[in-house]
Amino acid sequence: MLPWLGPSPRARELHERLVAFLDQHVYPNEARWHAQIAEERWRPPPIVEELKPKARAAGLWNLFLPDPEVGAGLSTLEYAPLCEAMGRSPMAPEVFNCSAPDTGNMEVLARFGTPEQKTRWLGPLLEGEIRSCFAMTEPEVASSDATNIRTSITRVGDALVITGRKWWISGAADPRCEVALVLGRSDSEAPRHRRHSLVLVPMDTAGVHVRRTLDVFGFDGAPHGHAELMFDAVRIPGDHVILGEGRGFEIAQNRLGPGRVHHCMRLLGLAERALELLCRRVRERVAFGRPLADQGTIRADIASSRIELDQARLLVLQAAHALDRGGPQAARTEIAMIKVAVPGTARRVIDRAIQAHGAAGLCQDTILPAAWAAARSLQIADGPDEVHRETVAKLELGKYE
Amino acid sequence: MLPWLGPSPRARELHERLVAFLDQHVYPNEARWHAQIAEERWRPPPIVEELKPKARAAGLWNLFLPDPEVGAGLSTLEYAPLCEAMGRSPMAPEVFNCSAPDTGNMEVLARFGTPEQKTRWLGPLLEGEIRSCFAMTEPEVASSDATNIRTSITRVGDALVITGRKWWISGAADPRCEVALVLGRSDSEAPRHRRHSLVLVPMDTAGVHVRRTLDVFGFDGAPHGHAELMFDAVRIPGDHVILGEGRGFEIAQNRLGPGRVHHCMRLLGLAERALELLCRRVRERVAFGRPLADQGTIRADIASSRIELDQARLLVLQAAHALDRGGPQAARTEIAMIKVAVPGTARRVIDRAIQAHGAAGLCQDTILPAAWAAARSLQIADGPDEVHRETVAKLELGKYE
Amino acid sequence: MLPWLGPSPRARELHERLVAFLDQHVYPNEARWHAQIAEERWRPPPIVEELKPKARAAGLWNLFLPDPEVGAGLSTLEYAPLCEAMGRSPMAPEVFNCSAPDTGNMEVLARFGTPEQKTRWLGPLLEGEIRSCFAMTEPEVASSDATNIRTSITRVGDALVITGRKWWISGAADPRCEVALVLGRSDSEAPRHRRHSLVLVPMDTAGVHVRRTLDVFGFDGAPHGHAELMFDAVRIPGDHVILGEGRGFEIAQNRLGPGRVHHCMRLLGLAERALELLCRRVRERVAFGRPLADQGTIRADIASSRIELDQARLLVLQAAHALDRGGPQAARTEIAMIKVAVPGTARRVIDRAIQAHGAAGLCQDTILPAAWAAARSLQIADGPDEVHRETVAKLELGKYE
Amino acid sequence: MLPWLGPSPRARELHERLVAFLDQHVYPNEARWHAQIAEERWRPPPIVEELKPKARAAGLWNLFLPDPEVGAGLSTLEYAPLCEAMGRSPMAPEVFNCSAPDTGNMEVLARFGTPEQKTRWLGPLLEGEIRSCFAMTEPEVASSDATNIRTSITRVGDALVITGRKWWISGAADPRCEVALVLGRSDSEAPRHRRHSLVLVPMDTAGVHVRRTLDVFGFDGAPHGHAELMFDAVRIPGDHVILGEGRGFEIAQNRLGPGRVHHCMRLLGLAERALELLCRRVRERVAFGRPLADQGTIRADIASSRIELDQARLLVLQAAHALDRGGPQAARTEIAMIKVAVPGTARRVIDRAIQAHGAAGLCQDTILPAAWAAARSLQIADGPDEVHRETVAKLELGKYE
Repeated sequence: MLPWLGPSPRARELHERLVAFLDQHVYPNEARWHAQIAEERWRPPPIVEELKPKARAAGLWNLFLPDPEVGAGLSTLEYAPLCEAMGRSPMAPEVFNCSAPDTGNMEVLARFGTPEQKTRWLGPLLEGEIRSCFAMTEPEVASSDATNIRTSITRVGDALVITGRKWWISGAADPRCEVALVLGRSDSEAPRHRRHSLVLVPMDTAGVHVRRTLDVFGFDGAPHGHAELMFDAVRIPGDHVILGEGRGFEIAQNRLGPGRVHHCMRLLGLAERALELLCRRVRERVAFGRPLADQGTIRADIASSRIELDQARLLVLQAAHALDRGGPQAARTEIAMIKVAVPGTARRVIDRAIQAHGAAGLCQDTILPAAWAAARSLQIADGPDEVHRETVAKLELGKYE
Repeated sequence: MLPWLGPSPRARELHERLVAFLDQHVYPNEARWHAQIAEERWRPPPIVEELKPKARAAGLWNLFLPDPEVGAGLSTLEYAPLCEAMGRSPMAPEVFNCSAPDTGNMEVLARFGTPEQKTRWLGPLLEGEIRSCFAMTEPEVASSDATNIRTSITRVGDALVITGRKWWISGAADPRCEVALVLGRSDSEAPRHRRHSLVLVPMDTAGVHVRRTLDVFGFDGAPHGHAELMFDAVRIPGDHVILGEGRGFEIAQNRLGPGRVHHCMRLLGLAERALELLCRRVRERVAFGRPLADQGTIRADIASSRIELDQARLLVLQAAHALDRGGPQAARTEIAMIKVAVPGTARRVIDRAIQAHGAAGLCQDTILPAAWAAARSLQIADGPDEVHRETVAKLELGKYE
Repeated sequence: MLPWLGPSPRARELHERLVAFLDQHVYPNEARWHAQIAEERWRPPPIVEELKPKARAAGLWNLFLPDPEVGAGLSTLEYAPLCEAMGRSPMAPEVFNCSAPDTGNMEVLARFGTPEQKTRWLGPLLEGEIRSCFAMTEPEVASSDATNIRTSITRVGDALVITGRKWWISGAADPRCEVALVLGRSDSEAPRHRRHSLVLVPMDTAGVHVRRTLDVFGFDGAPHGHAELMFDAVRIPGDHVILGEGRGFEIAQNRLGPGRVHHCMRLLGLAERALELLCRRVRERVAFGRPLADQGTIRADIASSRIELDQARLLVLQAAHALDRGGPQAARTEIAMIKVAVPGTARRVIDRAIQAHGAAGLCQDTILPAAWAAARSLQIADGPDEVHRETVAKLELGKYE
Repeated sequence: MLPWLGPSPRARELHERLVAFLDQHVYPNEARWHAQIAEERWRPPPIVEELKPKARAAGLWNLFLPDPEVGAGLSTLEYAPLCEAMGRSPMAPEVFNCSAPDTGNMEVLARFGTPEQKTRWLGPLLEGEIRSCFAMTEPEVASSDATNIRTSITRVGDALVITGRKWWISGAADPRCEVALVLGRSDSEAPRHRRHSLVLVPMDTAGVHVRRTLDVFGFDGAPHGHAELMFDAVRIPGDHVILGEGRGFEIAQNRLGPGRVHHCMRLLGLAERALELLCRRVRERVAFGRPLADQGTIRADIASSRIELDQARLLVLQAAHALDRGGPQAARTEIAMIKVAVPGTARRVIDRAIQAHGAAGLCQDTILPAAWAAARSLQIADGPDEVHRETVAKLELGKYE
């Protein structure tokens, strides 16, 4: 943690407790987690359910939620090191009920949900009893241009009828996923940013189909993963709209900001883990009579990784601070910057760790290939690098108008 | 093809015929190939068996084999464009009975096998009736330093007994794989390059166990893939040694040279295919009102890809020519150079194609992620980049002694 | 400036005043500065002498000096944005009496000088009346390994006799340079870090020869530049040692830490200036019917530059903070990290600005080529990247012992 | 040289002779050459005049000229290795009367000149008695879009009057430069590629002013260099037009093709020289107790350099062959490719050599900084990388129309 940032004593104390919990309960159980998933892919691994009550008992629960009434009440800057620590292990975030996309969905419900919506969905989510998904991306539309979303939401009497196709819906294939927050077009005649609504669709509603799961570089990501969904004239009650019709784009934009920051924090943790694996490996592995750690190119790789990771972390903290002070709109550029910088950095660091592991680094014997796939996919997910660079460039050029 | 290289009219004619065959029979059947594998992973896809007789009838069979008596009798330089063309489709090489590791194994048997070995194994391999594997790499030993191989081959009476563990044995899990060429240590007291022997082990011999398959970035590569094998006191007849005891390292080294050239040629074809997919995609896909093909960064990516691919191809041809003239030892540096250059180039080109495809480029909807994984793994397989760079550096520095 | 860093109100106020001074007095006079140097290369340009009293009157004088009695009393973290702002113009640092190597020399004299040394040298330096140099690097010795320095300092009666050759001595050829701080070997038998002494050598002492000046990528850097010096049995009084014999290495090490931080800060300012020039140029310049600013590759360059510069700045602030808290030894890794990161970043950003300027970016019509040369040379000066990477790697690997 | 290229025995023999001449007469005289230029910058160094008759006597004269009547009669592919060899030393090309821009000007005159033009200019140029320049680039016009050239050529009675400003005119400040080939606009109403004419302007004509010379990264390039020229109502006889009015653009385009190939060949030679300097340096220089040549990062740099240089050379040969077969228009893409690839490669290789030399690599003690500046400037001169990439991209995308 950066000494000059002065996190509150509480955040510092939480970080210590979290690190201890990871050491004691998470890392030693990772092998079990992998084995349980390998045994039955789309079943939630029991070890997570086992650890959740322990994490909750340790006060490490819903740390992401800035609302002190229902969550930990931490600022984004305070949460950052906690989120990074959780990102070190693919199994960790869920243990602390801090995994995407539920975190973003809980924030949306906490801020904009009606009392009924909160009771039905937010409560069980906060308890870690159910999971949820966020259905925005569509195959026909460049995800870099969200106003084009075509899934239709039509009011028919008291009900709303949803028709469309979505893909890359994370967590939708998890058997515990009980509700989808679906972004669709409710009024094509409205101004561009008022055309869409966000609605709550119970996953067991007639017409909701999980068509297939999508691999990322060969990884299905079970039991979470990404799914393609069909909404085939799905009918839901009219009160399942969040915040009101035409407010969908606005909610989505606000949700994406913190979501991107969290993604980057976790990915940073994952890259730090990869660097640790790299260092441990090269200290042990001997080739041509001396440990790999003595090779100059390996040492240069380690140094470059440390330098790049520290820079990426500082940029994330800058974005977190901007978000805390001015909200997602004000922090737009800072968030665009980390969205480009962090996945690229993580990907390079993890790739170096793979190379240092030799053939072992390519296969299921380490988390490295899956970690790399996660980093690579984040150069496309939530807006490709190109779109975020354009955001940054526009602002920079605008300074000289 | 490079006009100044002047391939023989026969090679040119074969290339034309091969390209036509790919257009007519291979590309249109790729979807079926993927579907058949998805249906039942470790079964050879029927479509390949269907196409093999057609390829043979078209005179496109065993093109890789320089021996004109049993193969096409082409030089490496002549074979290069054919091999590249086959590399464009993951299903293609086997259709023409030109897929690794059988190609290398057939060469070994053709050159060094006894008449009995040829009858039993080379014949069926040349007919495309069985498949084979080459068991060299071991988990405990840095594969960059092959003289350390520990699997033991002990003479007991007339028989040989093999004990050890191998991994990354490509094709060993294919149900048609009937024989393994196993490199093991037969005499620890002999000079460093005379300690090992290469033996033929029928896969159904007692004590041969396929322990598991190894994923590469989440891809199992079925039905070919890579396996971990146990040789648990496997007993084979004494005449199953190839060329003689103590000659294993020598054969392996000679086999690796052309093998690396073939790998690079195929990978080049794959990267060319990726560039084609990129170009087609960006001409069709519209974002913010115009085709992606109009974006400057995309156009720069395309140009860089073309420039890098042409350079890589020329380097491969240079290596092929060196191999033809002086054999694997004389061409050692040229081969080391392509082994570094081609996977790096292919990886960059394929990665650009992925980015241009957006989320579709991450999943099973294109061959791109698997292609990328193939390129990435070749920076480690058959000697990591570091080892090949060292070969090149030593020679370069040696010029100024 | 980073909002969360909370610089003291005084630092913030100084920054505002400094920026205003640059706008009013420095940028508008840069053309004159260049013209005056072109007119007579090794004469200090009169415009600087003209501006110095103005800067002093504005309270912008000796800002670098942490000692509040003689300097501004700012912490390194507080000084950082000021130093960066001065780095934006090659003529600026001297205007504020904040230019290297005098800043480091003044710090050394302020902390370790005797009253006589302070009166004779520190006073005039603080007044901006004379200049000084720091003579450490030698042509025969890898500068990455400073303990090998060979210039001899021999006690002969009450005097010290110095013999040796130094090069890359910045500012030694400036006609106002009146004193050199010379690092030499005073006791070859002492422990490795106690062998050297730092002595004050008036430049007009018999035996001190400026042999030639050294260009950096064709730039002589007049009137400051870098010189090669001969010390030919130079005799100085015995009381010209700083801090005591055998303390030279210790002083040099302590001096280098803040020196590197300042170098990086200034270089960051220069790179920011380059990015400004890039943006202004591409908004104005038209090719193929539209401003360069509309080209996608240019926009990507701008975004990457902003992202990389912000990361580099944050890393520098991290190092400044570490230096403030624990001193140069404790901040060794943080300083090594910025010494690698900042020149690399600056060089890339400036190079993009050059490319965007076309042929104009190659010649004397902009500061860009000289700025690039400054960035490039800092990848070697004060320790090559390789040495600093090694420092970082050692610490990182040490975490897992 | 590439064995499979089969250069004619004559080309091979010339290459051997040229290499021997360089070893015997050129490299040993480089120090003198530098010293003579340092002594008096804009005077042609006498050593070159001394060597020219020797080169001519050795049959190494006007090798570039494909016309066998007046030149060596070599194809571009045959000339390539000779041109590369000359590029190894900055003083070499002129020794063999093969230096730009005279080579291009001689080709133009040989192909398109009238008998009078040939007698007056081509003769003395072929003898190496005078030099010439080619005045195309203008400061106001993006050089990437040559049809915009504004310098006016107006017919007034029998004479032509030229008015305009040109810059980056290589060799114009050389005292031996006696004639400029000037591209100007002779008919603004004509079709876009027929608007310009190419005229011969004796440098001593009234109204021709060399306004200043342009540095490239601090290097003035004396006695050759680059100049800014003013044509102030310069009056020349009407018969000084080459090929006819309106043919200027056509000639310029045809001239640029081979010119770019030659530039790339020479630059490759320079980069090879840098790699040689790197290797020699690291074998000799000791740091931390062992030669730099033992450091892994240095060895990786050497290997990467060799790999990249071989690829670049092969690409240049491909372009040379395309040029020989189809002329500049047909070889447009191949030439665009090398124009991007070679300077980038050369720059990387030279930069590594600089880093390996430490501070010595930054200054006038080696040719490396000037070599780097030459490579860097070629990413802009004769069309910036961006324009050539666009040429390549357009063709590549066109394959899928």
